[in-house]
Amino acid sequence: MKDTGNFVVVPEGSVTTPKGFRAGGLHCGLKKVERHDLGAIVCEVPATAAGVYTLNAFQAAPLRVTQESIAASGKLQAMVVNSGNANACTGQQGEDDARAMRAAAAEALGVAEHHVGVTSTGVIGETLPMAKLLSGIAQLPERVKPDGGDDFCQAILTTDLVQKMTCVRLNVNGKEVHIAGAAKGSGMIHPNMATMLGFITTDAKIESEFLQQQLSRITDNTFNMITVDGDTSTNDMVVVMASGLADNEALHPEHPDWEAFAAGFQYVGEYLAKAIARDGEGATKLIEVNVVGAESDNAARAIAKTVIGSSLVKSACFGADANWGRIIAAVGRAGQPVNTETVDIKLGDISVLEQSRPVRFDEEQAEAYLKGELVNIHIHLHMGKGQATAWGCDLTYDYVRINAAYRT
Amino acid sequence: MKDTGNFVVVPEGSVTTPKGFRAGGLHCGLKKVERHDLGAIVCEVPATAAGVYTLNAFQAAPLRVTQESIAASGKLQAMVVNSGNANACTGQQGEDDARAMRAAAAEALGVAEHHVGVTSTGVIGETLPMAKLLSGIAQLPERVKPDGGDDFCQAILTTDLVQKMTCVRLNVNGKEVHIAGAAKGSGMIHPNMATMLGFITTDAKIESEFLQQQLSRITDNTFNMITVDGDTSTNDMVVVMASGLADNEALHPEHPDWEAFAAGFQYVGEYLAKAIARDGEGATKLIEVNVVGAESDNAARAIAKTVIGSSLVKSACFGADANWGRIIAAVGRAGQPVNTETVDIKLGDISVLEQSRPVRFDEEQAEAYLKGELVNIHIHLHMGKGQATAWGCDLTYDYVRINAAYRT
Repeated sequence: MKDTGNFVVVPEGSVTTPKGFRAGGLHCGLKKVERHDLGAIVCEVPATAAGVYTLNAFQAAPLRVTQESIAASGKLQAMVVNSGNANACTGQQGEDDARAMRAAAAEALGVAEHHVGVTSTGVIGETLPMAKLLSGIAQLPERVKPDGGDDFCQAILTTDLVQKMTCVRLNVNGKEVHIAGAAKGSGMIHPNMATMLGFITTDAKIESEFLQQQLSRITDNTFNMITVDGDTSTNDMVVVMASGLADNEALHPEHPDWEAFAAGFQYVGEYLAKAIARDGEGATKLIEVNVVGAESDNAARAIAKTVIGSSLVKSACFGADANWGRIIAAVGRAGQPVNTETVDIKLGDISVLEQSRPVRFDEEQAEAYLKGELVNIHIHLHMGKGQATAWGCDLTYDYVRINAAYRT
Repeated sequence: MKDTGNFVVVPEGSVTTPKGFRAGGLHCGLKKVERHDLGAIVCEVPATAAGVYTLNAFQAAPLRVTQESIAASGKLQAMVVNSGNANACTGQQGEDDARAMRAAAAEALGVAEHHVGVTSTGVIGETLPMAKLLSGIAQLPERVKPDGGDDFCQAILTTDLVQKMTCVRLNVNGKEVHIAGAAKGSGMIHPNMATMLGFITTDAKIESEFLQQQLSRITDNTFNMITVDGDTSTNDMVVVMASGLADNEALHPEHPDWEAFAAGFQYVGEYLAKAIARDGEGATKLIEVNVVGAESDNAARAIAKTVIGSSLVKSACFGADANWGRIIAAVGRAGQPVNTETVDIKLGDISVLEQSRPVRFDEEQAEAYLKGELVNIHIHLHMGKGQATAWGCDLTYDYVRINAAYRT
């Protein structure tokens, strides 16, 4: 997470910090416990929008409906999301329900139906309790406020323990531009394009084409580089809405302030992705795997994701065991070109393997390092210039506890 | 596991049941606890041999030495194996040690060096304690006996809880032919050609070419179809030795008894593969995933392995939670052609999804079924004739406990 000096982080900023956005959340009964389960982000004007969606073949119904909305005019004015029920694998009924959810939200919020996106997260294979949902949607107008970012964040959580939200500010033609994001995700996290749910708002003026391009780019480097359990969800989706109310000259890749915008966008994506990994089900720590010196960026990406996804590496991190043998075994099974004689591995600053040979290291020092809340695994392949970073978490008793009885 | 009637299982049969084989095991100090850590299978005559080896880029030194031996004349007369230390990622020293292990075994057992195979399993990245190992090898001649199959089996175990061994008998030209196998494996199990260690003996007469062909075929359907944790080891290897002492006419694919031989060979592989999956680290049950109606066998294989490898599916089985949403999500992320409208899923005999639509089922009955020691997940894609079966185990607290501190 590099602060290039091109942007600053806005303390306590939320998805409503960018000009034109309000948000909110409430409990309408989809979750059994009294916690928010319905939320919305609403913009004063139709915002330029872009999205990325799961590659899981069983894409949930609301994702198809949101894609339709964005396809209609490249704009969204409201994103409505429920937790507690994923509306996935629900057949024609699920499609109908997602459309009804969109229509009801459009009416309640007074925006065009094709300017509304919908999404859902929770249990797969149960149809939405529409009476509860529709009664909740009817309450949205009074709940959606300029300071409703926190409420929105709570509404999108399932097994998450913490809210995940950030905001940056930068200058474009001397105008203040904000980029903010909120996300949820804790289990079934191995995004094949995006994490479970991410919502990014900005007041920048930017063409839809460049917004989509940039969203896809940062998704590849951030949301797509995390894993909790290797399971890609049916509901993964990240949506960005750009209100344009910062009133800057429209951004494009040749704009003098493009780099600042791209850096801020990357920061928001990376912040949220790491927050999801750190809040992985049962996790006690964030693990970051840096791979450098690979034959290509794609090779580095595949290797980083294989290491971060290894149950054995994850368990060793939980146990603070400097078991580099499991790391090298994961590197070796990633299906990528590897020179088996030239690999270096460091845990933080502690070198454990050099030129593929074990290095004598202080076990106590390594154990102390691995007991921390952040573990960095650095892998240098000495083959080329490819590099990538992936994030994940340790595998713990609590992961098993949480997932042995999620539905019940 | 089909008994085609072509062979019978030999109760209490072991790797020494086929004519010409002796085996044994002993403790020489590689394991800290007083358990066997060195074993050998020895044949009266040089046996026709074939092997399959891990595709992990960091293939351990002993695997290369064994391949060299088999390449020299297609025969092995002794396989020597130690547990407690994998001799993997040990550089030139590891190569030298593997060769010294082979030379010492050849001398002690009085067989040609290129008729000796060696292999190792245990911790990665530590060099073999050669003094202990060589003193153990010197004791092998007195320990290798006709009834030493059990001792051998114990010598190859690491975190395994149970011995894994089987034997079948069949007829070839009216002569009794035996095929027996022993295996180890409990963690780092996601073989990309073979499980951690498998040893198959037979007294059949068979050409090396056909033996290799058949070993590769059964490996694809058995050892390569199991997973415990998705981690492919650096030391995976299965070796078969055929003494030819049954004195049958040499087997080949057109031989009238080939089918019986192939079925018996498949049985031995499948028995051992399932035994490994059932004994997966921390496992409380065996999970079998059958995929039928896929576009091709390869597609079925990929889908079956994705489902059996899903941490969420594995956790749900541990918790006896009939969470078919996780199964369908895994099917959808396998990267294979799937018709999202035509999928059926059954848990044992309990239908939970038909034509991709949820079926109302008795939750209590499903829970009772999932609490059993064997869980069958049947997936019908209704697309083509491809089929495959994969085996694995549940993900439990004990898996985490075992792997949070393996080295220490």
